[in-house]
Amino acid sequence: MPVSPFRKLAPYAEAARLQGKVVYPLNIGQPDIETPPAAVEAMRNADLRVLGYSHGAGTESYRRKLATYYQRAGMPVEFEHIMVTTGGSEAILFALLTCLNPGDEVIIQEPFYGTYTAFAIAAGVTIVPVTAHIEDGFALPPLADFERVITERTRAILICNPSNPTGYVYSRAELESILSLCKAHNLYLLSDEAYREFCYDAPYVSALNLTGAEEHVVVVDTISKRYSACGARVGALVTMNKDVYMAAFRFAQMRVSPPGLGMLLAEAATDLPDSYFDDSKAEYQARRDLTVARLQAMPGVVCPRPGGAFYVLAHLPVDDTEEFGRWLLESFSHENQTLMLSPANGFYQTPGLGQQEVRLAYVLNRTDLAAALTCLELALLAYPGRTAPLPAMVADAVPALTA
Amino acid sequence: MPVSPFRKLAPYAEAARLQGKVVYPLNIGQPDIETPPAAVEAMRNADLRVLGYSHGAGTESYRRKLATYYQRAGMPVEFEHIMVTTGGSEAILFALLTCLNPGDEVIIQEPFYGTYTAFAIAAGVTIVPVTAHIEDGFALPPLADFERVITERTRAILICNPSNPTGYVYSRAELESILSLCKAHNLYLLSDEAYREFCYDAPYVSALNLTGAEEHVVVVDTISKRYSACGARVGALVTMNKDVYMAAFRFAQMRVSPPGLGMLLAEAATDLPDSYFDDSKAEYQARRDLTVARLQAMPGVVCPRPGGAFYVLAHLPVDDTEEFGRWLLESFSHENQTLMLSPANGFYQTPGLGQQEVRLAYVLNRTDLAAALTCLELALLAYPGRTAPLPAMVADAVPALTA
Repeated sequence: MPVSPFRKLAPYAEAARLQGKVVYPLNIGQPDIETPPAAVEAMRNADLRVLGYSHGAGTESYRRKLATYYQRAGMPVEFEHIMVTTGGSEAILFALLTCLNPGDEVIIQEPFYGTYTAFAIAAGVTIVPVTAHIEDGFALPPLADFERVITERTRAILICNPSNPTGYVYSRAELESILSLCKAHNLYLLSDEAYREFCYDAPYVSALNLTGAEEHVVVVDTISKRYSACGARVGALVTMNKDVYMAAFRFAQMRVSPPGLGMLLAEAATDLPDSYFDDSKAEYQARRDLTVARLQAMPGVVCPRPGGAFYVLAHLPVDDTEEFGRWLLESFSHENQTLMLSPANGFYQTPGLGQQEVRLAYVLNRTDLAAALTCLELALLAYPGRTAPLPAMVADAVPALTA
Repeated sequence: MPVSPFRKLAPYAEAARLQGKVVYPLNIGQPDIETPPAAVEAMRNADLRVLGYSHGAGTESYRRKLATYYQRAGMPVEFEHIMVTTGGSEAILFALLTCLNPGDEVIIQEPFYGTYTAFAIAAGVTIVPVTAHIEDGFALPPLADFERVITERTRAILICNPSNPTGYVYSRAELESILSLCKAHNLYLLSDEAYREFCYDAPYVSALNLTGAEEHVVVVDTISKRYSACGARVGALVTMNKDVYMAAFRFAQMRVSPPGLGMLLAEAATDLPDSYFDDSKAEYQARRDLTVARLQAMPGVVCPRPGGAFYVLAHLPVDDTEEFGRWLLESFSHENQTLMLSPANGFYQTPGLGQQEVRLAYVLNRTDLAAALTCLELALLAYPGRTAPLPAMVADAVPALTA
């Protein structure tokens, strides 16, 4: 089991803070938006006399309400398709344990959420990467790239949509093509939709919105980002495939039930008006626009404009972003401030890729975000390991693709 | 992944309830005692503005307070030995994933908590059973029985103390002998201590109270039973072995953090006065005494008197307790009441064992418990599959051993 890629720089950040520096945490996707007070209040006011186990798949009342949330987004989901999990994390683990046997393979577009590697190890399965490129704004690679790596052991393709770490949002056409590929090769399409509510340029299409999703699609979901409630640890595995559901339920029974207090909060959150998302989305969109504009204006930086989530994946003109990240914490400060970023090598499985890329999470208020980006701009000018920018062809291609 | 042994009879219980019967649930260990109101209040009053991720090992404030709980019981536990988990369930899974490689073996005394089988499958490891016997009150089998099954792949012995499903509490001498065995063969001693606070006849000895526990002992703990807070999903993995701790921590990072609301409740519960346990223990002890006295008075029933937990494992004079359990729900009622029990075959790995045994959980108030036991007594007289009692030698041996 490898060290979490998000934590490698943590000791340096701690040391910098002990020295009295302000360290802007652009490294993890912990939203700073307030957890909906109405949902918190409902949990507070619930009858908590005996805090007992719930049904292994979650309380029926929450599952029925959550089904209406999906139905409002056009997904034909009923409560019996929903298994409440301990965060999206557990849903990913259950999906891998259920759809794959030990030794089987799952194909994932890289760069991908580094923690998938840990889940794959825990489930005893192998991740086979298909590389997406910054020149294409991290769009879906050609299907031929997927077909080339399908073997007898391949059981599933896992997508993250909108993507952590790239922020890329798949189009309906891309989703349809990948579902067709799954059907042709009898694979499951595992779709991690943690950031579903954070799409800024076009309406979101879920894998469960596709025609013919019934047998092949397993959606992984969570309230962590949607309602800024990471600590509640409430997620869901959603599938219309009864065999997959029943197999996953046996793993769910193993740990008896999902967190009860979090479920109370999650259930109340389904009653929030649609305008709730308008406000948080507008805030994140403004942050994205600020982040992308600032990064694109920095000499040598290449930053596609992502359509969703809280992240940008950018190329920096430095030799090694892990070294640069350490240097930011150990040797740099501007007005006693610096920032922590995620080196992108942790998001690639293919050795050597992502060494000049970073993921930045825009989960700070705009004042702090602007200050952090000023630190980054000045640091890039001062960094001894600065390299030449990418060839003009590549750097130019990006704005055109993402305008 | 097998169907949970606790759930096999669930559809029959549901059908019985739909017919209007009262079904006393003696099948699962869901305490009915009130969750401590002071702990619930503290959680309600906490600052829940942004419900963020905690540290992967749990909040430092809770870990520091939990360390004092262990210290009060004479265990040399510091906060850095404690990893907060999502219920005891996750601690068991992490312990198996950490201390064993796929294909390795863990020895467990049977009958054992049936869900260990599911965790072993999820971790890719093999359970090797050593059988304990009702004639001995389910005491620790001779060490020679363990030595006989130790192989090159054996990495650990897992005990549950007090035991679910037998209620047996290990003596200090038994624990010392099993730790010596672990040391001699370089095995981990995994000790599931979920029921630590429920010991009725003698002070409890934890595996962490033993001299020389540092390198070998990994304790699995939970607040589920201790504070009647099963739904909070807060447990802990406790070990002084730094390598084990760090390896487990990588699995903990995978799922980011344990449930935050539950941790707030758990932290407040550590402030409860010692008398809190006196009250709940006295209640459970009275229920145990009632249950054992009633069972021992039923012709043909053999019931050792357990020293702890909420369970008795009893021999019934019936051909097959799974059949009998179904018959109780489908074909029997007394004043429109019946009961649900756990057939003990789900607690044995060796095929054929436990077919005449049941586990009964005494988690109902004494009025309901007495009514349930009356149903059982009358049902045994009426059941068509009634068998001869055990040989007198065996039936007689039990009270002598457990007086």
